[in-house]
Amino acid sequence: MCSLQHVNPRVRGIGDSPQSALQRLAADLTRQLTQGAQKPFKRVIDVSSGDPHKAGMKPISFVRQVLSACLYPELLEDKSLPPDVKTRVHRLLETCDGGSVGSYSESSGLPHVRQSIAEFITRRDAGVPSYAKDIFICAGSQRALMIVVKLMASGEGDARTGVLIPTPCPHTLPPVLDEAGAVAVPYELMEERDWAVDLEELHRAVAAARGRCEPRALYISNPGNPTGHLQDRTSIEDVIRFAAAQKLVLLVDEVFQDSVFEAGREFISYKKALFDMDKEFSQTVELISFHSLSSACMGECGLRAAYMETVNMDPEVMTFVDTMLCGDITTPVTGQLALEVMTNPPRPGEPSHDTYTQEVRLVRATLVQNAQRACRILNDLPGMSCRPATGGIYLYPHLHLPPECVEQAKALQLEADVLYCQQLLAEEGVFVGVGGSARNHHLRLCVLVPSDTLDEVLARLASFHLRLMGRFLSD
Amino acid sequence: MCSLQHVNPRVRGIGDSPQSALQRLAADLTRQLTQGAQKPFKRVIDVSSGDPHKAGMKPISFVRQVLSACLYPELLEDKSLPPDVKTRVHRLLETCDGGSVGSYSESSGLPHVRQSIAEFITRRDAGVPSYAKDIFICAGSQRALMIVVKLMASGEGDARTGVLIPTPCPHTLPPVLDEAGAVAVPYELMEERDWAVDLEELHRAVAAARGRCEPRALYISNPGNPTGHLQDRTSIEDVIRFAAAQKLVLLVDEVFQDSVFEAGREFISYKKALFDMDKEFSQTVELISFHSLSSACMGECGLRAAYMETVNMDPEVMTFVDTMLCGDITTPVTGQLALEVMTNPPRPGEPSHDTYTQEVRLVRATLVQNAQRACRILNDLPGMSCRPATGGIYLYPHLHLPPECVEQAKALQLEADVLYCQQLLAEEGVFVGVGGSARNHHLRLCVLVPSDTLDEVLARLASFHLRLMGRFLSD
Repeated sequence: MCSLQHVNPRVRGIGDSPQSALQRLAADLTRQLTQGAQKPFKRVIDVSSGDPHKAGMKPISFVRQVLSACLYPELLEDKSLPPDVKTRVHRLLETCDGGSVGSYSESSGLPHVRQSIAEFITRRDAGVPSYAKDIFICAGSQRALMIVVKLMASGEGDARTGVLIPTPCPHTLPPVLDEAGAVAVPYELMEERDWAVDLEELHRAVAAARGRCEPRALYISNPGNPTGHLQDRTSIEDVIRFAAAQKLVLLVDEVFQDSVFEAGREFISYKKALFDMDKEFSQTVELISFHSLSSACMGECGLRAAYMETVNMDPEVMTFVDTMLCGDITTPVTGQLALEVMTNPPRPGEPSHDTYTQEVRLVRATLVQNAQRACRILNDLPGMSCRPATGGIYLYPHLHLPPECVEQAKALQLEADVLYCQQLLAEEGVFVGVGGSARNHHLRLCVLVPSDTLDEVLARLASFHLRLMGRFLSD
Repeated sequence: MCSLQHVNPRVRGIGDSPQSALQRLAADLTRQLTQGAQKPFKRVIDVSSGDPHKAGMKPISFVRQVLSACLYPELLEDKSLPPDVKTRVHRLLETCDGGSVGSYSESSGLPHVRQSIAEFITRRDAGVPSYAKDIFICAGSQRALMIVVKLMASGEGDARTGVLIPTPCPHTLPPVLDEAGAVAVPYELMEERDWAVDLEELHRAVAAARGRCEPRALYISNPGNPTGHLQDRTSIEDVIRFAAAQKLVLLVDEVFQDSVFEAGREFISYKKALFDMDKEFSQTVELISFHSLSSACMGECGLRAAYMETVNMDPEVMTFVDTMLCGDITTPVTGQLALEVMTNPPRPGEPSHDTYTQEVRLVRATLVQNAQRACRILNDLPGMSCRPATGGIYLYPHLHLPPECVEQAKALQLEADVLYCQQLLAEEGVFVGVGGSARNHHLRLCVLVPSDTLDEVLARLASFHLRLMGRFLSD
């Protein structure tokens, strides 16, 4: 019998996050609207997490053309499909057992796809070599991270594995640590410096953690999720030196590497920075980098595929990654094939190259314009300030709420930003994410949405915000 | 730093199964062949696990047509696609957020797909109602089972949750229990009665387990994996009464429900049997049934989708299934849409109905003929006996090896059937699964492969087997 008292205490311990409570409210509102309920809004717009297609962004045609013909190879007879799509489909089906996407793949991923990923990384990092054997394909970057954290989670009491994580961090990160049984060791990012990583703060965090747990890894996202901060080479080198000194494995979430949008700035991977440093670092610092098909330009969240590259990891330890992937699910083959296209896009001169490039450019242009416009408009609101983002897909505005507002939330046993999001959702049908910063109140807004959707979000948000502020000012 | 000594002891404890060792050998042989190595065989044939497309079975066209146009809706303009494919695509894309398979779905699955599944179950069970709220979509039935077992795993020492599992059982089952931290309580199936479930044996097993753990669930597969046994109504009722008396949750793996192939026999679901019993059972016995897209007729393993239906479970407990699915990965949307097609195939009169029906019939006919032919041929071999299968996709022959053969294996610290499989693979390039029966030696052979592939498997297997037996007889 499975009664409540017999439910795994660890499962019972998984807290109901503000995000899931808001999700339920959003689903409920949508249901009411479908059933004809009258609301001040016609649809709920969800900008709380990165789901670009849901928001109306268009998929990249080449990806979809290739996948559709991989699924139904009879389409190869179709004259409307560009020849490079057909060539690609032939090549990809050769890598699937039995020539079908319906076969299982090896647990760490299709060898040809791992090879394409390694070549992509080598090109990206100006020749720093990458090897297929170090690439592991997973059903999403969160899943990949879960495998690594589970692998490293050991010890009891004050010997438990600790993982340094930033505040704020992706809202999906803390549950991963909880489930794996690792201790979260928070370090604060510096809002006043556009959410930069601060070396002293890292030292403070690790010192405070020692004795409470055994810090063994440092998680960082670059470009920052949800802060939009892009680290420069110096900052990355600082973090690498810190990790080396403290013997921490670097877990680097680089899923937004394709969305850096400040002119003159470029994404530098941790691996590239590491390999440009002295041998004492480049040959020793353990690094795992994550990238995903859900990333900005592709936005293919529903296909479920991501990969991690491991650097300087003990090969014996890595055999356990294989073991765990075996016990995990195989990554859906369609997603793996899309990863191949993402990392090996049409080249100049190939028939699909121009369309592909234009479509990717359009996504980037929308993202940049949205981020800039939204930042300006949010900063114009009283009681709100927003640091400009340099990359990623989020804005992370700071709410400066009147004390009465905070008190009101407290009386309802809620954080003020959670209450704010609930009311915004209920009154305007706009679903923004809750901050996740310990001391202040913030919102998380995905700006990778069509421009007109963003206009609507900003208009409804401004209207709600001004009403709320007016309510307290007039009190 | 992540050195071997810091690897999670639970992860280190995951044993290297004979199946994975054989898998590595098979991959290695394939690599050698690709590189031009000379072997007595040209390719490795894998019949160790159910992966029909890998073996060369063809996908069902309607499924692939629908998915390809869902991925690339421009194909809806294509005149060659049947109109019911187009109608279906329109309907399915409406259920995807933003009209794209690239969006995340709700964690328990797309509502429309859950509804189609519930209607399928209701039709299958002659009107016994099924509700979408009780259907949970997962990325594979093993994943679904993992969630349930994790949910139920609690207690320490002799209060740990025990799960009764059959011997033999699917080779993927024991690692699920290990990872979840539940205790496996084995009960033996009766080979001499074509692998029937024996009530006395269930009583023996549960009695032996009490004091060692708290048995809280009983896992059973019907049709049996890998035994091919199909339970009749009486046998199912016996198991239900036993579960009721012992207060066990029934975890019923019914993924082979579409592959019953003995004339005059039909699949009866545990749910249908339960609802035909008295209220004291039908309203109380807790039951979770699993079904999968990887099932016999579809064979779409690479798309990763399955579902479970929960019956009589405490709704409060079920909220934790939702919580766990939230923390798990979303099931790939393409797989979910394929599940919709599987459970809601073209109806009579619709343009694709005849082709669909013919293709499914062809798969079934191949399966039946293969199972019968293989069984006959295996039984003709000296030192081998094979019970006829009534359903499923496996044969499970018994190896009666000469004592010298067993001694030789022992000297190598191997089970005799493991050594047999290694030698068969190395000498003939045929990869069959190892038994997993405690006291005897068995092989596991997937017979859902094209007929000519099966011929080749049987010829190479016979040749090896006769050589081996000859070697010992002549000694």
